[in-house]
Amino acid sequence: MGKKVGAEYLGERKYRFRVWSPFAEKVQVILKDSRKVVDMKKDERGYWEAEVNNLSQGTFYKIRLDEEEEYPDPASRSQPEGVHSWSEIPNSSYTFEASGWKGRAIDEMVIYELHVGTFTPQGTFTAIINKLNHLAELGVNTLELMPVSQFPGDRNWGYDGVYPYAPQGSYGGEQGLKELIDTCHQRGFSVLLDVVYNHLGPEGNYLSQFGPYFTDKYHTPWGSALNFDDEYADEVRNFFIQNALMWLEEYRFDGLRLDAVHEIIDRGAKHFLKELSQEVDALEQKTGCRYMLIAESDLNDTRLIRAYRNGGYGLEGQWVDDFHHSLHTILTGEGAGYYKDFGKMEYLAKTFRQAFVYDGIYSTFRKRSVGNSPLCLPKTQFVVSIQNHDQVGNRLLGERLSKLVSFEKQKLAVGMLFTAPYVPMLFMGEEFGETRPFQYFVSHGDKDLVKAVQEGRKKEFEYFHHGKEGGHTDPQAEETFKSSKIDWDYKKDTSKITLFEFYRELLRLRKEGAFRLFASSQVKTEFNEEKKWLRITSEEEGGSLFGLFNFGDEVTSWNPSETSQVEILFASADKK
Amino acid sequence: MGKKVGAEYLGERKYRFRVWSPFAEKVQVILKDSRKVVDMKKDERGYWEAEVNNLSQGTFYKIRLDEEEEYPDPASRSQPEGVHSWSEIPNSSYTFEASGWKGRAIDEMVIYELHVGTFTPQGTFTAIINKLNHLAELGVNTLELMPVSQFPGDRNWGYDGVYPYAPQGSYGGEQGLKELIDTCHQRGFSVLLDVVYNHLGPEGNYLSQFGPYFTDKYHTPWGSALNFDDEYADEVRNFFIQNALMWLEEYRFDGLRLDAVHEIIDRGAKHFLKELSQEVDALEQKTGCRYMLIAESDLNDTRLIRAYRNGGYGLEGQWVDDFHHSLHTILTGEGAGYYKDFGKMEYLAKTFRQAFVYDGIYSTFRKRSVGNSPLCLPKTQFVVSIQNHDQVGNRLLGERLSKLVSFEKQKLAVGMLFTAPYVPMLFMGEEFGETRPFQYFVSHGDKDLVKAVQEGRKKEFEYFHHGKEGGHTDPQAEETFKSSKIDWDYKKDTSKITLFEFYRELLRLRKEGAFRLFASSQVKTEFNEEKKWLRITSEEEGGSLFGLFNFGDEVTSWNPSETSQVEILFASADKK
Repeated sequence: MGKKVGAEYLGERKYRFRVWSPFAEKVQVILKDSRKVVDMKKDERGYWEAEVNNLSQGTFYKIRLDEEEEYPDPASRSQPEGVHSWSEIPNSSYTFEASGWKGRAIDEMVIYELHVGTFTPQGTFTAIINKLNHLAELGVNTLELMPVSQFPGDRNWGYDGVYPYAPQGSYGGEQGLKELIDTCHQRGFSVLLDVVYNHLGPEGNYLSQFGPYFTDKYHTPWGSALNFDDEYADEVRNFFIQNALMWLEEYRFDGLRLDAVHEIIDRGAKHFLKELSQEVDALEQKTGCRYMLIAESDLNDTRLIRAYRNGGYGLEGQWVDDFHHSLHTILTGEGAGYYKDFGKMEYLAKTFRQAFVYDGIYSTFRKRSVGNSPLCLPKTQFVVSIQNHDQVGNRLLGERLSKLVSFEKQKLAVGMLFTAPYVPMLFMGEEFGETRPFQYFVSHGDKDLVKAVQEGRKKEFEYFHHGKEGGHTDPQAEETFKSSKIDWDYKKDTSKITLFEFYRELLRLRKEGAFRLFASSQVKTEFNEEKKWLRITSEEEGGSLFGLFNFGDEVTSWNPSETSQVEILFASADKK
Repeated sequence: MGKKVGAEYLGERKYRFRVWSPFAEKVQVILKDSRKVVDMKKDERGYWEAEVNNLSQGTFYKIRLDEEEEYPDPASRSQPEGVHSWSEIPNSSYTFEASGWKGRAIDEMVIYELHVGTFTPQGTFTAIINKLNHLAELGVNTLELMPVSQFPGDRNWGYDGVYPYAPQGSYGGEQGLKELIDTCHQRGFSVLLDVVYNHLGPEGNYLSQFGPYFTDKYHTPWGSALNFDDEYADEVRNFFIQNALMWLEEYRFDGLRLDAVHEIIDRGAKHFLKELSQEVDALEQKTGCRYMLIAESDLNDTRLIRAYRNGGYGLEGQWVDDFHHSLHTILTGEGAGYYKDFGKMEYLAKTFRQAFVYDGIYSTFRKRSVGNSPLCLPKTQFVVSIQNHDQVGNRLLGERLSKLVSFEKQKLAVGMLFTAPYVPMLFMGEEFGETRPFQYFVSHGDKDLVKAVQEGRKKEFEYFHHGKEGGHTDPQAEETFKSSKIDWDYKKDTSKITLFEFYRELLRLRKEGAFRLFASSQVKTEFNEEKKWLRITSEEEGGSLFGLFNFGDEVTSWNPSETSQVEILFASADKK
């Protein structure tokens, strides 16, 4: 187990400060109020530490490097005055009530992805608690919070976080987050956190002042890559591993969603993700809880989730974009950008059978072969969705499916989501067909950066939505954020109520195991590219299960063999 | 199976030309003598092809791109006028005599690494044949040729090759190489080829004119990386895979030594090396021969050689530098550069037991943890040496072990090499203690490049041999090359004859299985850091094997338990 970093409470008002800065010759802790300066001591790996007595929660501090500049602590637990200012010594007083909670395995999860700032009018951790009744009624059992680490300003998706250890102050900070998790556990919900270990945000990122956290060897979409395999990588890896362990052990999250792991570039003999996974295994031994690690990846590489003995990194799950894209292109007819690789019923059938469409086949969009075969893995290691923050938010207008396709087609999509043998994930509001957009928003403080983001966003859409014009919104405008908030007054609209009931009913059937036969490796699919119907069949002794999906505009009929007795379990058109 | 590239003989004086150039709008074959211009036709992946009648071996041609520039064929089989000039249509007339040859498994190999240009006075493939008696007498059974692909000029280690498909003209080209391999097989020798799939040389490399063979995403010590995972990577991968298949199928090499595979950067779901390995498996099915793929790697990552089912790439073997470095530092006391990580008897013992010293432990030189555990793998997947082209040639003066340590210590090193349970590899001349150097030499035609190489080499040694001055030789000077040639008149020196007999005797004992007990997973090592002795013990029912190595300057004695009867199998000091 590596060294903890940041300010750690040792009891009796004593704190240990530890920060990694291998090239510094002198490092000190500066306490704001007392203006006390405490020299730190360096170890052979470049960690500096000092113990300070008579401190209390709320003390502000910075780290001074080589008697020149002062910076916030890279492992700050709280940044009450924003990303450029003082770090605050953490509160360690929260007492968890849900003491018997032991976690939940991925194959039992029904995940609900939400963005803290836009999920409720208040945009806080605490306000989420008010919505737990709604979520319980819906039938999901796992919340997944988009990243909560401190970012510049108070509006951000979370992927611009710069203090991985500090829950965003405007969301309610440490206290609010712990209360939320504790309450969720008392109510039977698991909570996952989206963590970003592939880059830091562009504003308020002082890591490079402290040491070689980044490497020029590799480039990512966000600039130089974090240093996972170059000189000094052990300590950079430890910074993120300790972060993961903090969320799981101290905050009691049930697992982590690892953002875009294909940009965690590590050619070493033990990949960072495997090391992370093994450290989390060790924590499971210590606490007796189960923790799920779920990767987002564009590689379609089963190495992420294979067992160690099979050369894998041992993660519990990974997202499958192919499922979304196959379905989305059939539903909408869209084919620009990466959607070019989809749009066939053949692919929709394939993703239903085996998650990955791209299992080694050639991708026209990527201009190379992509993926490997997922056939030997349990289907419950794959997380699928019909909407998520990226697929909605990374559109020109941030439109949800409710704005793109008919009500009947929305229901068809939901039917695919819940009958497929994977772990389903919903995006906040889709359960009642929220029609407000989910757009890209920031609240950076740096003017040049704001301009760069505004222009970058425009450019991205020139590429993806070439040909379309107008409707562009300003990521920096507060209105963009506000208009992305969920409208909880959905019951005024009967079709929204109908859709919510539709989700409920399918989730209820799913929970009862009504669709479990579709998890069989013997599942068969038939389809018609022109008429756009898909038929799924899974037979076993004593009974068979059929799924019929008609994405076309014509009515189509199917007669099973004469001797069969067919019972209709569920029909999307029944619910109007 | 991918598409073949280059000029392929179809019979009846007809050849098919195929070249990959995805962005070109017009591609033509230009025939030198007839000045005939033949239009090629493009397929959907960017391969252009044309069939031309009435051609014969010796016809010169180039490829013209977009009616502008003309270049040699990237897959040229012969460049009689050098790297900048005409390509030559290949000779396909060689008839192999050794038709029953089926290859040799790695665990039976005793490898002899040689550089074609300096191994014999003539520096040709054919001249090697004259030395086969010597090698047979010595007791090695496998030749490993340093890279032979066409490089600029006629003096080069081979790592500056720019026509992967063309055997160096000054070595004797296709005809000479096929004769050599065929003769080796008739004499019972296997032949491995060192191939360079991580970069191309700096002079005469026109690949980028044809297409995106390189990517800016990653950097290697030689500049932009070859494109193994970016857009268009499938075709780049195929270029090298077809090259490997050509050497194995058409030239009948018994395997390939893959240069510095850690610089083959591929984050995709199927690593290039796994694809290569699978393609070679398929060739084995086709020809009934066995082919060995052996990687050079600085990663100490067992993924290279693990079976596919264990997440590996399925290569047969990999080099273990740790073995060399552990031994070399103990023998010489050197500790600069990467030798800083070694120099302990503990590490020498560890490498004897399990090949990798760095199996996940922290490297002071690399400033990070390196490697993973090799314990679950057969020991005959690891190739070890006490000298090789790099460890000798990448020294300021190119000194061999014979110039660095005493005769007795040389013998100790040989004893370690042949009693260790790995695949041993000798470097040409070490078997009689050649005292001439093996230095770095080139014969580039580009003056700026020559200057850059000269200065780069100087700089490298400032780093590695900091503190030492003088003795620097000019890589471009013909004398540097000449002075690196083996002196075959070794029998004038009795100590050289003694050493040769010493190698022979140990190889004979090794072949008889005298040391096989050291391959046991139960092997035990004891050592003394101060006195520098190492004791290796392997016990089984019915008898035990002991190895005693004294690297210190003091005589040391050891008495096995009283009840044992010890027979001395071999003692290095006996041979004077």
